[in-house]
Amino acid sequence: MTAEQFADRHIGPGPDDERRMLETVGYSSIDELMDAAIPEVIRWHGTLDLPAPAGEREALAELRALAARNTVAVSMIGLGYHGTHTPGVIRRNVLENPAWYTAYTPYQPEISQGRLEALLNFQTMVTDLTGLATANASMLDEGTAAAEAMTLARRAGKSRSTVYVVDADTLPQTISVIASRAEPLGIDVRVLDLDTEELPGEFFGLHLQYPGASGAVREHTGLVEAAHAAGALVTVAADLLALTLLRPPGEIGADIAAGTTQRFGVPMGFGGPHAGYLAVRAGLERMLPGRLVGVSRDADGNPAYRLALQTREQHIRREKATSNICTAQVLLAVMAGMYAVYHGPDGLREIARRTHGMAARLAAGLRAGGVSVTDVAFFDTVTATVPGRAADVVAAAAARQVNLRLVDADRVGISCDETTTEAHLAAVWAAFGVDGVDGEVDEALPAGLARSSDFLTHPVFRSHHSETAMLRYLRRLADFDYALDRGMIPLGSCTMKLNATTEMEAITWPEFAHLHPFAPAEQTAGYRELIGQLEGWLAEVTGYDAVSVQPNAGSQGELAGLLAIRAYHRSRGEGHRDVCLIPSSAHGTNAASAVMAGMRVVVVGCDADGNVDLVDLDAKIDKHRDALAAIMVTYPSTHGVYETGIAQLCAKVHDAGGQVYVDGANLNALVGFAKPGKFGADVSHLNLHKTFCIPHGGGGPGVGPVAVRAHLAPFLPGDPVGARGDGAPAISAARYGSAGILPIPWAYLRMMGASGLARATGVAVLAANYVAARLRQHFPVLYAGNKGLVAHECILDLRPLTKATGVSVDDVAKRLIDYGFHAPTMSFPVAGTLMVEPTESEDLAELDRFCDAMIAIRAEIDKVGSGEWPAGDNPLSNAPHTAAMVSGDQWPHAYPRSVGAYPAGVDRAGKYWPPVRRIDGAYGDRNLVCSCPAPEAFEN
Amino acid sequence: MTAEQFADRHIGPGPDDERRMLETVGYSSIDELMDAAIPEVIRWHGTLDLPAPAGEREALAELRALAARNTVAVSMIGLGYHGTHTPGVIRRNVLENPAWYTAYTPYQPEISQGRLEALLNFQTMVTDLTGLATANASMLDEGTAAAEAMTLARRAGKSRSTVYVVDADTLPQTISVIASRAEPLGIDVRVLDLDTEELPGEFFGLHLQYPGASGAVREHTGLVEAAHAAGALVTVAADLLALTLLRPPGEIGADIAAGTTQRFGVPMGFGGPHAGYLAVRAGLERMLPGRLVGVSRDADGNPAYRLALQTREQHIRREKATSNICTAQVLLAVMAGMYAVYHGPDGLREIARRTHGMAARLAAGLRAGGVSVTDVAFFDTVTATVPGRAADVVAAAAARQVNLRLVDADRVGISCDETTTEAHLAAVWAAFGVDGVDGEVDEALPAGLARSSDFLTHPVFRSHHSETAMLRYLRRLADFDYALDRGMIPLGSCTMKLNATTEMEAITWPEFAHLHPFAPAEQTAGYRELIGQLEGWLAEVTGYDAVSVQPNAGSQGELAGLLAIRAYHRSRGEGHRDVCLIPSSAHGTNAASAVMAGMRVVVVGCDADGNVDLVDLDAKIDKHRDALAAIMVTYPSTHGVYETGIAQLCAKVHDAGGQVYVDGANLNALVGFAKPGKFGADVSHLNLHKTFCIPHGGGGPGVGPVAVRAHLAPFLPGDPVGARGDGAPAISAARYGSAGILPIPWAYLRMMGASGLARATGVAVLAANYVAARLRQHFPVLYAGNKGLVAHECILDLRPLTKATGVSVDDVAKRLIDYGFHAPTMSFPVAGTLMVEPTESEDLAELDRFCDAMIAIRAEIDKVGSGEWPAGDNPLSNAPHTAAMVSGDQWPHAYPRSVGAYPAGVDRAGKYWPPVRRIDGAYGDRNLVCSCPAPEAFEN
Repeated sequence: MTAEQFADRHIGPGPDDERRMLETVGYSSIDELMDAAIPEVIRWHGTLDLPAPAGEREALAELRALAARNTVAVSMIGLGYHGTHTPGVIRRNVLENPAWYTAYTPYQPEISQGRLEALLNFQTMVTDLTGLATANASMLDEGTAAAEAMTLARRAGKSRSTVYVVDADTLPQTISVIASRAEPLGIDVRVLDLDTEELPGEFFGLHLQYPGASGAVREHTGLVEAAHAAGALVTVAADLLALTLLRPPGEIGADIAAGTTQRFGVPMGFGGPHAGYLAVRAGLERMLPGRLVGVSRDADGNPAYRLALQTREQHIRREKATSNICTAQVLLAVMAGMYAVYHGPDGLREIARRTHGMAARLAAGLRAGGVSVTDVAFFDTVTATVPGRAADVVAAAAARQVNLRLVDADRVGISCDETTTEAHLAAVWAAFGVDGVDGEVDEALPAGLARSSDFLTHPVFRSHHSETAMLRYLRRLADFDYALDRGMIPLGSCTMKLNATTEMEAITWPEFAHLHPFAPAEQTAGYRELIGQLEGWLAEVTGYDAVSVQPNAGSQGELAGLLAIRAYHRSRGEGHRDVCLIPSSAHGTNAASAVMAGMRVVVVGCDADGNVDLVDLDAKIDKHRDALAAIMVTYPSTHGVYETGIAQLCAKVHDAGGQVYVDGANLNALVGFAKPGKFGADVSHLNLHKTFCIPHGGGGPGVGPVAVRAHLAPFLPGDPVGARGDGAPAISAARYGSAGILPIPWAYLRMMGASGLARATGVAVLAANYVAARLRQHFPVLYAGNKGLVAHECILDLRPLTKATGVSVDDVAKRLIDYGFHAPTMSFPVAGTLMVEPTESEDLAELDRFCDAMIAIRAEIDKVGSGEWPAGDNPLSNAPHTAAMVSGDQWPHAYPRSVGAYPAGVDRAGKYWPPVRRIDGAYGDRNLVCSCPAPEAFEN
Repeated sequence: MTAEQFADRHIGPGPDDERRMLETVGYSSIDELMDAAIPEVIRWHGTLDLPAPAGEREALAELRALAARNTVAVSMIGLGYHGTHTPGVIRRNVLENPAWYTAYTPYQPEISQGRLEALLNFQTMVTDLTGLATANASMLDEGTAAAEAMTLARRAGKSRSTVYVVDADTLPQTISVIASRAEPLGIDVRVLDLDTEELPGEFFGLHLQYPGASGAVREHTGLVEAAHAAGALVTVAADLLALTLLRPPGEIGADIAAGTTQRFGVPMGFGGPHAGYLAVRAGLERMLPGRLVGVSRDADGNPAYRLALQTREQHIRREKATSNICTAQVLLAVMAGMYAVYHGPDGLREIARRTHGMAARLAAGLRAGGVSVTDVAFFDTVTATVPGRAADVVAAAAARQVNLRLVDADRVGISCDETTTEAHLAAVWAAFGVDGVDGEVDEALPAGLARSSDFLTHPVFRSHHSETAMLRYLRRLADFDYALDRGMIPLGSCTMKLNATTEMEAITWPEFAHLHPFAPAEQTAGYRELIGQLEGWLAEVTGYDAVSVQPNAGSQGELAGLLAIRAYHRSRGEGHRDVCLIPSSAHGTNAASAVMAGMRVVVVGCDADGNVDLVDLDAKIDKHRDALAAIMVTYPSTHGVYETGIAQLCAKVHDAGGQVYVDGANLNALVGFAKPGKFGADVSHLNLHKTFCIPHGGGGPGVGPVAVRAHLAPFLPGDPVGARGDGAPAISAARYGSAGILPIPWAYLRMMGASGLARATGVAVLAANYVAARLRQHFPVLYAGNKGLVAHECILDLRPLTKATGVSVDDVAKRLIDYGFHAPTMSFPVAGTLMVEPTESEDLAELDRFCDAMIAIRAEIDKVGSGEWPAGDNPLSNAPHTAAMVSGDQWPHAYPRSVGAYPAGVDRAGKYWPPVRRIDGAYGDRNLVCSCPAPEAFEN
């Protein structure tokens, strides 16, 4: 009589599968396996204190109840968050389509051409609208984009000054994020009212908001020239919609543009997620942080897209990095780009005109009623002055379900957007006690700043304006790609598990989608309760005392955690502690985050088994004892092993006065069996997009909450708007980061409960050990812990085979595409290896299909090794095979077509064909093209 | 400052496209074109009296307001409609996925293997659960399935009796539909209480309900034997969920089983749509009406699915047909089949046990409180006796948001289902004023009827139980198919236009999805208002006075319209009028419907131009003047022409005392320009799945409202439950038919408004004439009207080419797949031709892509004609080409692979590959297999 358990749907292997997997691994039960795998010293034997698991319907009903406690009012608050209409065809076929939302980061470009094209559209949209040369494939939000612009200006500019000037009319949350990022780096931020205050003599960068937070549209050319004269670089934080009508940053001399694309069809989501953007003038493109999509060519010479330059700071500079951004907001960038594709330049201009028209009418109506409105030019936002009455006006509007911005006791800010209607204007006028006006009024755009240049001239922005055409374009791109809805994505450390429909459901409900992050608290009670519960459950799962969901990516969680450690030391008068120990096996982001937190990175070696070398650790602690701030380790290690020395490691660092940071990337191997907060760690960040089911979305959104023990709790991120100056850093622009997608992990935890979570962990570890057991005789498994067991992933060592045969890790990864798989993680953490993480969601049939493919590939490698197939012309070196290749009139290869096209075991009828052959990344880096190529490029 | 117009998204060609198309056709404006094309005698020059078009958001807001006026209560009414949980993965990836919902009927099986496999799963599910040999691919609902079972029994049985016996414990709406269908056919329906009344001496069929409407589960073996002894066939209307626990109809000797699969994950939708089912014992499979999917083989000998037998009655018997069913409920059948795939046999059994357990507890609780409950065995439904108090109890339950069934003044029916919870039981007990019971109670299933046979043994029902596996299975099948989301489906007369997301949105909202058709009126105010508005708008569009949305397919609309004519004549004492004139070009369904309405079909010839031959019409009218009941014509004609004689035709028939039925199949060529109700017709049915945007769903749901002039209004369909015996026929089981999808046409009409609808018609006619103009020199266009113009479709005559070269219509249709298109309609209405209807939603780029493909195919045909390619081995005769074929190690064909794989203009990277080669339909008909084949069949 029990209701269906969600865990049975989430976990792939059924009881029969599980038994057969255990037999192969040599254990009689998952408990026995976990007892053997996990060192007793960290093992936690309790049952998580979570509510009993809810069924899918029950969880949805609870979410409905929480949603009902939110109020969807009309938002005219502005400040970088605007109401927008998501076209139904984009919502349903991107945001609600697993082909898009379950995709992974496009590191395997041959099977990611669809989202790479969509991102190229995004980049083209940003460069066209900003008038700059190159844009990346999105940033986390406007605040962090602006902070990245600051550090970019510092790296790229010639000035040696440490002063960064910020226009006082900048969005307040942006100022907070800039300030939080600046302080550990020794940057001196000066917020100046540039209408009245002079620029300092020396400064390395200038940040301008365009239009300003107040709504004012200023002519910035003079400031730009002055900054350039001082050797400073200029960032313009610009509203893309306004740029359809206003002269763009690139045409007023800006070096950098930063901002958000939220209002291009991405719901506000109580603060996020949405795609920030960053664009630079020619000459700075190789300094861009984050991900950049570029055009290159494939083995046939056809144009093909891939991530260009691999510009991720932490890869190329590691300990010297000044950016740790690693993911992007791909799913949301795709939406914003598609919004531009669907509306086209004329449609966007019309939306902008209409929005401006509403604001102009609003202002005219206020003035007609005797209310003083700032008399400068504006686009969508006006500031009204009502001495002493501002709070009353805001309250009167709220009573009419319209939220305005309370600037101060005398001033009210009002923003119009795509969703503004006559009824909204009437409500605002009524709140001010004026009658308003009828009919059209004059534009209030500054004539001297009117945009004359064309934009979005590429055909992609002029061809898909009917819903039918748009639908087909989205389908076509989706079909290019391989995502979880086609098959397994066994990426080590990325935990590509099921993103269940029920988890995804609530994020598109209006009560979660359409809340402004600065909406009055009484309108957001449901959200805050959900977030509170989620933080509590995450604390319980990890054994910590407090959690903040503000960081909107794992990298931001790292920064938040390290800043908490830094602040803690300073609070105890130990501000001199600035050494962060990082094992050599660590993810590059760790080092970059430490640098950003103002720390010096000291690397600790690993021993032959891949574990942290405790002898070297002792030595490094001895050497840096007084300066020791922290150690950052990943657990289980990036080698996929439960290191037994972890408790010892924690004790040693603590003894030396340091704090222990456990990177939560591999938490999927611990949940229900060990709690970092209980086995010695002081702080972790979690990756909700790994362990807790937020879909990867093709490379974002990520969510990286930070969890701490009680002594660090006072130093968690603060409210970027409310708390400026109170010492709590602003990690993201919005207080709760990517709040809009938090219903996903909430639903996962609510439906799995303690028993489901522990079972998921056990099955994930069983699956990894099953794959290791089946593949060990074909590829050596590089590291193992207790009793030869791995944790939730295993590393297959290809180096001996590569040495013997010349077949590379790349060849194997690309050949897996022919077999119908996404490749495992390549050459991380050890060059020349593949790291496989099957997760608990893959059933035995899929695990076996993968193992069979790897074994078949091993046999293919042997044929190369034996000389049966020539080294330079074999199914591995030529992989992946496209349909066009295997059906070509010529077949000059040394093996039959059928071997290329349909290797053993492949489902012929349902085969996935990549749209391009292997891509030459280096060619594209030498010939950098980062916007949509002309259609002629694709002519055969 | 105007809001975005939905019509601009719905209509494919933009202003530039339109101008270029007009140039090609030779007109300066759409108005000028329409003036030339449409005979002035029918032309209507007004503006439709519809609300001004709403934007997409505005329409959704209005739908939200209507939805809010519905109340989603807990339904325990039963009577064939049950609460059910649609698994999220199925809802999102089938019902909300355009790859499934925009698909067409699988007449081109090579590009429909996904939905054919899904339908085979459905058929296998039905045969396994009913214990019968063969099931078809779904019926319109349980009532019509039962009526089809009756006529099947009459055709197939040996008895010459006209008596049909119906168990009094049958669902009341089923009895109504059976009675409505029986009367015109001269069948004498006897509803008998078989517990107390004797079977008559002679009867040709017996209908039993299992379990009964009262909930009683009876041992029917004795009745079955008695019926067989009398030479009658037995239909058991069985609940499939109950059959997981109860001995199935096939094992108690039933010849036929009929029923609904609604409770297998398909929301109640205020009555529909959902899939009915019909299954028969061995020996009757070739008598099955409707669509039947079967296994055959393709040109490589691989198993492949297609529609078997083409059993559609109206095709094989036309004037003698006793079934007019033509469509199915494919989308809903796919959902129900996938529900069984996802739950598997164990899951279904558990749901059934849990449901029964709830009912057993409910009964025990009532008894414990002193309420008398029928003491027979039951499954999910019990009848409680509360003398004189039944209405009070029902009201008390309604006050607790629980709907019960008021049987009569003394009795209350209560049904449990998958969604029943403890809280629901408590509410019911409270409504009865009893305390209920705690804990488990004994089962109340009859031990002698326990099911012992296994079911759903095929691996497909045992392999996809995790959400990941299910998601991938759905994606795999979807990828096999070609639907509107890939490209144009230029099917003549099927009007495959855009099904916009905004139109589809509301149908999955709980307030529309979860209402029981017999819910109290105060809970359905929003629905009734929506339906009233829709009926009003449809009346305005067609020029009629009254509309009923009850018919849940076009064929049912035809029957409803003809029954109205019949009843009208009878009401005037002219019941002898029974001749229905039907032009020779008519769709076969017309004749079948006439027969079912008790009429004699007399065919009227067509002249050389394809128009109704008015001379022959005069002759036929003269011959049958006194008996003339009606004429049924399609307008524009099935030849795609605006016949100029239509007004004359109407006058002639009226003069002879007949009624004029205009089949609304081609209404897309009239909306806004002519109104059948104003140019002479008395009745029409409309196809909401053609002109009004209900998606085809792969072959259903269809919706076929009937529209009449005032004198026929009294004879429109009645309420199948309330109105039995009042003369108004029951066409479908539910009063408003497929109410659940009526928000789709509502939204279309609301967003298009008068101007948008007229523009759509104009562009549809322009597009057809553009295609005709571009293709005329390559393929003769068979018929044309005024000034050589076609209406909204055109017929391309391939007969001369076929004669000259041997290349058939089939070859061209299959070759179009290689070019990335769905074929036009083949050989209807004229054998050897292709009928092309582009619709208004295709933009010029897609129209040109199609024309270019047809022109390229013409050049290919010429190469066969010239002998350059052999007649038996050329790209046309071998089409479609699969990826496996063109990449085979051998290439024995007389043309290069590249010509087969990538004919001119095909998008190489995004090419759609069919999963099988051309299918041999006849082989499958000789070797009929209509359930899932063993996996071994697919081994290479």
